Amino acid sequence: MDIVCLDLEGVLIPEIWINFAQKTGIEELRLTTREVPDYDILMRGRLSILKEHGLTLSDIQQVIGTLSPLEGALEFLNGLRSRTQVVILSDTFTEFAKPLMEKLAWPSIFCNDLVVDESGMIVDYRLRQTDGKRKAVEALKGIGFRVFAAGDSYNDLTMIKTADSGALFRAPQRILMEEPQLPHAQTYGELNRIIDDFLAKKG
Amino acid sequence: MDIVCLDLEGVLIPEIWINFAQKTGIEELRLTTREVPDYDILMRGRLSILKEHGLTLSDIQQVIGTLSPLEGALEFLNGLRSRTQVVILSDTFTEFAKPLMEKLAWPSIFCNDLVVDESGMIVDYRLRQTDGKRKAVEALKGIGFRVFAAGDSYNDLTMIKTADSGALFRAPQRILMEEPQLPHAQTYGELNRIIDDFLAKKG
Repeated sequence: MDIVCLDLEGVLIPEIWINFAQKTGIEELRLTTREVPDYDILMRGRLSILKEHGLTLSDIQQVIGTLSPLEGALEFLNGLRSRTQVVILSDTFTEFAKPLMEKLAWPSIFCNDLVVDESGMIVDYRLRQTDGKRKAVEALKGIGFRVFAAGDSYNDLTMIKTADSGALFRAPQRILMEEPQLPHAQTYGELNRIIDDFLAKKG
Repeated sequence: MDIVCLDLEGVLIPEIWINFAQKTGIEELRLTTREVPDYDILMRGRLSILKEHGLTLSDIQQVIGTLSPLEGALEFLNGLRSRTQVVILSDTFTEFAKPLMEKLAWPSIFCNDLVVDESGMIVDYRLRQTDGKRKAVEALKGIGFRVFAAGDSYNDLTMIKTADSGALFRAPQRILMEEPQLPHAQTYGELNRIIDDFLAKKG
């Protein structure tokens, strides 16, 4: 039995934090792990900025709700879900992803959780586990799946390399140069062809 | 992060083989593991009956396509998928489940595969692994999920007991008497209440 693991941001939807920063005009929220390599420091910073601006989870969900999946993402995902199993592996938070998951017709997503207080303020976050994408692929292989994985970022590389097969999707030039052995798709059509080749090879 | 594992037949859709036997009038296909305890012997028997009647996979899918999810199942599942993650754990085959998965808006399903030849005849089947439901729950717990499981049959008991919490759904009297400690739901409304209690308890 086959399963396709997809990264979320950059593959099916736009980058949530960057777009949220744009929509709200809060420039400090544009920071990513490129500028702040320690994820915990980055997230604590983000949560304190949200608090400072008095933004509750539902305020944030409302802004995220104005974002749309990438062009063609819904059709790509619907087609894929009719041909094989799909699970989205993401480092984002269920609560942030939710308005966009609805627009993608509720695919399965394995990601992380926020801790929200009675007033709706986000007070903490909870990672499902460290290196969650790779470990999810390992777990799926462990229960008898042949796994294909695709993503666009450095944090997708261990997942792609742990999978039985995989590809980069719209990855930055730097990753493409560092990983010339990985197939690369720029369009959903190209990614579909790579996935269909994998599905056609019976394990 | 939470996930709900649901059995398929008897919980969301009718029993495939029994209904298929009814629709086609092929009475021998009514046999289940109750009459033929060895699953492999049962399946080989089923496949040879299908061959004898010249039924290809697409013939079978067409008949299965005339079946409907249980009343209220789609609404129950849609509601659940908007509140938490859901995966269907089933002993059926992807190819048989497919027409019904479409009617259920393509939830994720972990089950088994058929082997089909060029002419569309089913020549073999491939179990993802033995005791697949229990092992899937273990794998999900292993990657940081809190797991709730629900089903109606003997083959759901290890999955339910391995999960962090679980319930029986429309189980036969005999199982209810043997497992009095397990919560039991007769309606989707009751099952929703049991699941929501689980989701509300923060792990």
